Amino acid sequence: MPLDPKDALRAWFLGPRGENAELLERLVVEALRDHVFWRRNYHPEDGFTIRETDKRQEGYEASVAVLTQELLSLLAELKRDVPFFSGRYKGHMIAEQTIASQIGYFATMLYNPNNIAAEISPITTRLEMEVASDLARMIGYDPARSWGHLTSGGTVANFEALWLARSVRYLPVAAAGAAAEVGLELEVGLPDGSKAPLTELRLWDLLNIPGEASLDLWELLQRSAGVAEARRALASHSLASIGYQEYSRRLALDYGDPLPAGVVLVAATAHYSWEKIVRALGIGSNQLVQVPLDSCFRMDPDALWDCVRELVRHRQPVLACVSVCGTTEESAVDRLDRVIEVRDRAASELGASFHIHSDACYGGYAAAVTRKADGDRRKGDEIRRSTGGAWPDDDWIRAIASLAGADSVSIDPHKMGYVPYSAGAILVRDGRTRLLVAAEPPYLAPADSSQPEVEPFLGRYILEGSKPGAAAAAVWLSHKAIPLDERGYGYLIEKTMAGGRRLHAELGRADLAPFQVVLLPVPDLNIVCYVVRHPSQTTLAALNAFSERVFGELSLARKEGPPDYIVTRTRLQSPMYDGAIGPLLATLGVCSLDEWKASGSEGLVVLRSTVMDPFLDPPGPGPDHVTGYLTALRKACSAALSPPHPSASPPVPRR
Amino acid sequence: MPLDPKDALRAWFLGPRGENAELLERLVVEALRDHVFWRRNYHPEDGFTIRETDKRQEGYEASVAVLTQELLSLLAELKRDVPFFSGRYKGHMIAEQTIASQIGYFATMLYNPNNIAAEISPITTRLEMEVASDLARMIGYDPARSWGHLTSGGTVANFEALWLARSVRYLPVAAAGAAAEVGLELEVGLPDGSKAPLTELRLWDLLNIPGEASLDLWELLQRSAGVAEARRALASHSLASIGYQEYSRRLALDYGDPLPAGVVLVAATAHYSWEKIVRALGIGSNQLVQVPLDSCFRMDPDALWDCVRELVRHRQPVLACVSVCGTTEESAVDRLDRVIEVRDRAASELGASFHIHSDACYGGYAAAVTRKADGDRRKGDEIRRSTGGAWPDDDWIRAIASLAGADSVSIDPHKMGYVPYSAGAILVRDGRTRLLVAAEPPYLAPADSSQPEVEPFLGRYILEGSKPGAAAAAVWLSHKAIPLDERGYGYLIEKTMAGGRRLHAELGRADLAPFQVVLLPVPDLNIVCYVVRHPSQTTLAALNAFSERVFGELSLARKEGPPDYIVTRTRLQSPMYDGAIGPLLATLGVCSLDEWKASGSEGLVVLRSTVMDPFLDPPGPGPDHVTGYLTALRKACSAALSPPHPSASPPVPRR
Repeated sequence: MPLDPKDALRAWFLGPRGENAELLERLVVEALRDHVFWRRNYHPEDGFTIRETDKRQEGYEASVAVLTQELLSLLAELKRDVPFFSGRYKGHMIAEQTIASQIGYFATMLYNPNNIAAEISPITTRLEMEVASDLARMIGYDPARSWGHLTSGGTVANFEALWLARSVRYLPVAAAGAAAEVGLELEVGLPDGSKAPLTELRLWDLLNIPGEASLDLWELLQRSAGVAEARRALASHSLASIGYQEYSRRLALDYGDPLPAGVVLVAATAHYSWEKIVRALGIGSNQLVQVPLDSCFRMDPDALWDCVRELVRHRQPVLACVSVCGTTEESAVDRLDRVIEVRDRAASELGASFHIHSDACYGGYAAAVTRKADGDRRKGDEIRRSTGGAWPDDDWIRAIASLAGADSVSIDPHKMGYVPYSAGAILVRDGRTRLLVAAEPPYLAPADSSQPEVEPFLGRYILEGSKPGAAAAAVWLSHKAIPLDERGYGYLIEKTMAGGRRLHAELGRADLAPFQVVLLPVPDLNIVCYVVRHPSQTTLAALNAFSERVFGELSLARKEGPPDYIVTRTRLQSPMYDGAIGPLLATLGVCSLDEWKASGSEGLVVLRSTVMDPFLDPPGPGPDHVTGYLTALRKACSAALSPPHPSASPPVPRR
Repeated sequence: MPLDPKDALRAWFLGPRGENAELLERLVVEALRDHVFWRRNYHPEDGFTIRETDKRQEGYEASVAVLTQELLSLLAELKRDVPFFSGRYKGHMIAEQTIASQIGYFATMLYNPNNIAAEISPITTRLEMEVASDLARMIGYDPARSWGHLTSGGTVANFEALWLARSVRYLPVAAAGAAAEVGLELEVGLPDGSKAPLTELRLWDLLNIPGEASLDLWELLQRSAGVAEARRALASHSLASIGYQEYSRRLALDYGDPLPAGVVLVAATAHYSWEKIVRALGIGSNQLVQVPLDSCFRMDPDALWDCVRELVRHRQPVLACVSVCGTTEESAVDRLDRVIEVRDRAASELGASFHIHSDACYGGYAAAVTRKADGDRRKGDEIRRSTGGAWPDDDWIRAIASLAGADSVSIDPHKMGYVPYSAGAILVRDGRTRLLVAAEPPYLAPADSSQPEVEPFLGRYILEGSKPGAAAAAVWLSHKAIPLDERGYGYLIEKTMAGGRRLHAELGRADLAPFQVVLLPVPDLNIVCYVVRHPSQTTLAALNAFSERVFGELSLARKEGPPDYIVTRTRLQSPMYDGAIGPLLATLGVCSLDEWKASGSEGLVVLRSTVMDPFLDPPGPGPDHVTGYLTALRKACSAALSPPHPSASPPVPRR
């Protein structure tokens, strides 16, 4: 049977009305009973530990009563939760989940495997490795050379990326120390492609060895000195062992060359968690250098080049450059192809190199749009024929295809993968990287694995320890039911992108007089941001206060009860948004760019709607949620303009 | 109805035979339908997006077929998963989960709230705060002053503990810089209880301010300089901003006093993840100082005192001391009361202070044993009347009660809390600590919360971002159904401890001739470790190889098919176990302590069985799993002694 995604789409989710409830219930009951009979078939001679007479004891019954009652209370409370499933929810990047992931999670949770090690998760560790390969293939990594795994979320994935990047960056310094200690003369590859003896390199050179050359050097050292000896010698020179305090002191001593601290370049739109990450890693938030944006809210590649050149001039090493594929505020997709060009140029013109990480936590799944069923890439025209418009343009396709050129990519199944929390993922292009952070716990010493393709002990290489095999099964089953190409996720994401563009277009056309809608550019993915202004607002502060009131009217926490539509908002601040906000401010006309810059943390509040609903364009058979959205917005603006006297409208009890 | 735990216990789990399948299925279906009708009641006027005719399309049906087929494959594969539910599984610290947690997780997963912020998890963020309060009360923290939250697991909880500890430890240094910058003269509390002006303190003194005094100083600075100014000034002097490289340089310059790097003291039994943690934080694994063990596999308090005194003599600051409550290898419970005494003594005699963290990831829930229904502590005699023996002794009770005196405690609901992965937790005694690591994301700016008791934005204070509200609901519902006292978890854990001691005792009594069973001491909790030796083994290497073969015979991955009982093993290495292993080696008689020390990574392999099954003592109505265990062990030892020729026994297909 052909899997026409147009029709299949309607089988992928429980549905805004629970239309597929019968399907989900059938699968849930099937999985539960299947599990129960597994238990019953395991050594049936063991008999029953809990007998029917036990179930008639007062204490048993009391316990069941307590549990049932408390569950009913929980269910009652959850009715005040956020209706992510509805076309009326146009807030954060969260929606309902695929049935496949729900049932995959539930079925496997009953077994509760722990993917820290295959010994206690023989099946789901393999599924996790398969998921990593699925994602690797989708973004263009070679699954045989790359490596990846699931994390509890994007922050941990990004944390690991930078932790790994630092390990690779500082590796040549440790290798130089180790080689000298064991009396070896080794050569290493330089950014310009030439080779040089380790002993001739200064600290600066060592910190600018390309990642792959660093890993080659590491292998060479192990071949030359023997694995055990190489490990011992490396440990006595590595940052991981020595720690920053002693390391800095030692470098200054050994090289007479106390270079400034290494920096991490991030798009100015980068997620706030990058600040947590550099603080926790001991790098320090001062070393987080924000690269200016262009007017599309993407990292400006020219600004990146200027930045790199300046840093090199000051001999300040760059640990990593973090480019974003799908910013969490505007869903902007950095021109990763041009970021990679900057690194290539830095290598040839400046002799400098750095790790490139793509934070594709939000947008990574959009790569499915570029894939055919056979795994080949779709051409731009093919995709545009299917979307029936000008989207995506060739630049977007180039940016997405360039994920294959990043050294590491983080990508969250629990965002655009439509699976339940918690499932993030990290991929590294060169799988050897993971060995640099390996730890060795005594009670999970690797055993002979009867399945050599299975990672026997994932916990060695990752930050986390115990982790749910159920999450791996959820993602795995979702990828099986909804392929990572034009037949599955590609189609789903095309639809939500189309919905986002439709919302953007209709907001632009809408007559909300006396209110004026001022939009951010057409989104690269599916987050629509805008400001609504009334002529009476003539200052930034007044405009922001108004936007906050509009948000309050369209927020689930609204005092008068839930609104018809739910949106959210964000605050664009200086200096992060200096490069992008000009046109917006010019249209709004409440302040100049300089005044906005001077406003500090005041910034500009924008309303923000993520479209994860695949039924927005064309609208489904029910009421059109774009029309409804505009009506609700107009009402909210009016209410926000002249807030009613508190006593005039008695608070409606919340659902 | 009285909730007699003896009978209630049989309602808490699905049961080894799925005896409570009817109950779980009823609740699962109830929760699912309840959710579906919530959707259907939300704006019924929206009509149906997925119509019955849509479900008759070929593409829809094909998609359902694919999903069903793939689910059936997954279910078939899962039948090779580990039977954690069975009394025959005596391996890692993992068992089946409470029905309450399973249904709590499933019911809430359908809503998929994200506890990063209350805006997208209005109910479950509150539940998470309630869970943190439950746990705080259980261990003796004041829920009004303390703070805590769930994490993806113990490693992240421990990571956060050390991250927070470092922030508190270095705070006075930043405060001194900030106060000088804004021209304030402030006083701060010293370890001996006196006060001194900040300006008179040397770097060493600043790094030895007690945690609470540091936080008081921080508040004083904010009151004196104003919050915004204090924040700005602190940021320009804090490690989090500056990063280690520049920080070390600056301290050496400002104080002319380049102190050695700060160390982290851990029990030698501490989980291997502590090494990952200090590496990632930039502290460096060389700064992880292992405190020797006593013969009960607990941190030796006298050795701790010697260690602290030596470090102080070398003016090497101690960032934190990590004591373990329930080691993952032996379930040893450190004498935390005596660890705290060491710190008190260090404060008064040496003028030194440090953070005390209890890694109670595994054993923390045992504190429920010490609680009555009204929350008061049970006396030793009361508990022993209920356990009918000498356990627990007063030292154990004092150690558990001392959790209240630790600065932070990590405690995993997904271990002895019997809830599904992933649910760890971190608690800090002084809730102000969290503000030191706060970050500020633009799109989740705190709104007016209509429920002031709810943390509006948890993501500010924690390492992770997106996190499952379902995990919070699972733990919450489990605590409701099974209270954290003698009626609930206390009873459950008493039973598993009794089972552990019974297994230990019967292993000691068992006649496995010609094999000799040599046991580790009676466990503090419920992990039993031992070595089985045959007279023909006269070297450490031979003994270890034999133990590995016995493990192989009792491992699910056994080539001939699954064994009747499943155990695991671990490797006790030098120098970590130098203090504890003497008696064991003496009884084994294959090598001296010095020979063992010289064996390096060879160490001693011990078999290891965690008893999480509450039906082992007294045995349930089925076959006795202690007797069965001993029979299986004897068989495994015989097989391991003379491994059959590979071709002699054709491999049996695995279940």
